[in-house]
Amino acid sequence: MARMVEFFYDVGSPYAYLAATQIDALAARHGATVRWRPFLLGAVFKATGNEMPARVPAKARWMLGDIVRWARKYGVPFAMPTRFPLSTISAQRALVAAHRIAGEDAQRKLALALFRAYWGDDRDVSDRSVIAEVAQCVGLDAGAVVDAIDAPETKDALRAQTDEAVARGAFGAPAMFFEGELFWGNDRLALLEDALSQAG
Amino acid sequence: MARMVEFFYDVGSPYAYLAATQIDALAARHGATVRWRPFLLGAVFKATGNEMPARVPAKARWMLGDIVRWARKYGVPFAMPTRFPLSTISAQRALVAAHRIAGEDAQRKLALALFRAYWGDDRDVSDRSVIAEVAQCVGLDAGAVVDAIDAPETKDALRAQTDEAVARGAFGAPAMFFEGELFWGNDRLALLEDALSQAG
Repeated sequence: MARMVEFFYDVGSPYAYLAATQIDALAARHGATVRWRPFLLGAVFKATGNEMPARVPAKARWMLGDIVRWARKYGVPFAMPTRFPLSTISAQRALVAAHRIAGEDAQRKLALALFRAYWGDDRDVSDRSVIAEVAQCVGLDAGAVVDAIDAPETKDALRAQTDEAVARGAFGAPAMFFEGELFWGNDRLALLEDALSQAG
Repeated sequence: MARMVEFFYDVGSPYAYLAATQIDALAARHGATVRWRPFLLGAVFKATGNEMPARVPAKARWMLGDIVRWARKYGVPFAMPTRFPLSTISAQRALVAAHRIAGEDAQRKLALALFRAYWGDDRDVSDRSVIAEVAQCVGLDAGAVVDAIDAPETKDALRAQTDEAVARGAFGAPAMFFEGELFWGNDRLALLEDALSQAG
């Protein structure tokens, strides 16, 4: 069986964005696949007593430069959004819906496009018309995805996925699991890669 | 003039310990020197409104495995201390005193030995007799170092160094500065190394 990395993400997290740009290629280098799993970071913080790192003003100032350095290292766009933090519940539900409607690869493409819209192009991804536009650009039936945002099965699926991540030890984003171990943060991709290469 | 990295550390921080085992060799690879600077992490947290990461239970559980993975990657000893967190004020003052009495290299050697005693050998580095023993093992006049822990100039110097780090943006440990930029955490050594190599 192919080795598999689970990637729990929320499009509102800058470090999830950075990791999202790298995770597929990293896994592919070691013959592993990635299971993309949207969760709701705000609910994870609430459940675990964690807080967003930008709560500490000095850390928030440092983070801005830190994200710029990572983006430069990876060669990916980054522009600090004018809206931060913002509610990602509609976007995360849209991702769950996209998965149900069009499959995991459609979810992955929509995730990458929403990450890019928010962290590269300063779009308001809490706005359903923006979500629809981005969904259409990646070839999805935008109306079907947006209509499914409020569907009970969408809400339940996002809640269940979030609860599962918390139950397995997640407390922030991105939360990556490989062979039962949690790797937290874009800055742990190197340790995840070590684990993948040692798993032979 | 030789390029210089400032390394603010507290022996009570596991990530400062991990970085301490790497920082000299990393800097040397790029023809840079390291200025080792003890500060008091508890005072940094208080001044910035930050908290120790282990405050969040799920993060504390993850951290233990995370530190083990880094220690394995670096090939350095690690055993979770039975006393954690512990007061490092005497140890940090002893480091300031060692610097004044015997110079920066003596301070660096004492720092590495105290880090090792705490994170490798489960010693109680809040205990002055342990500090004296470790100081003696690295060739210092243990009596002089321990006697200087309570000297006003020792206390003032540690406070001034801590205040300076906070004023320059530090909020946690290790805090590394290179050319005006703050690199926070053992997990930012790779970005620090990028900056050193690009500074050419």
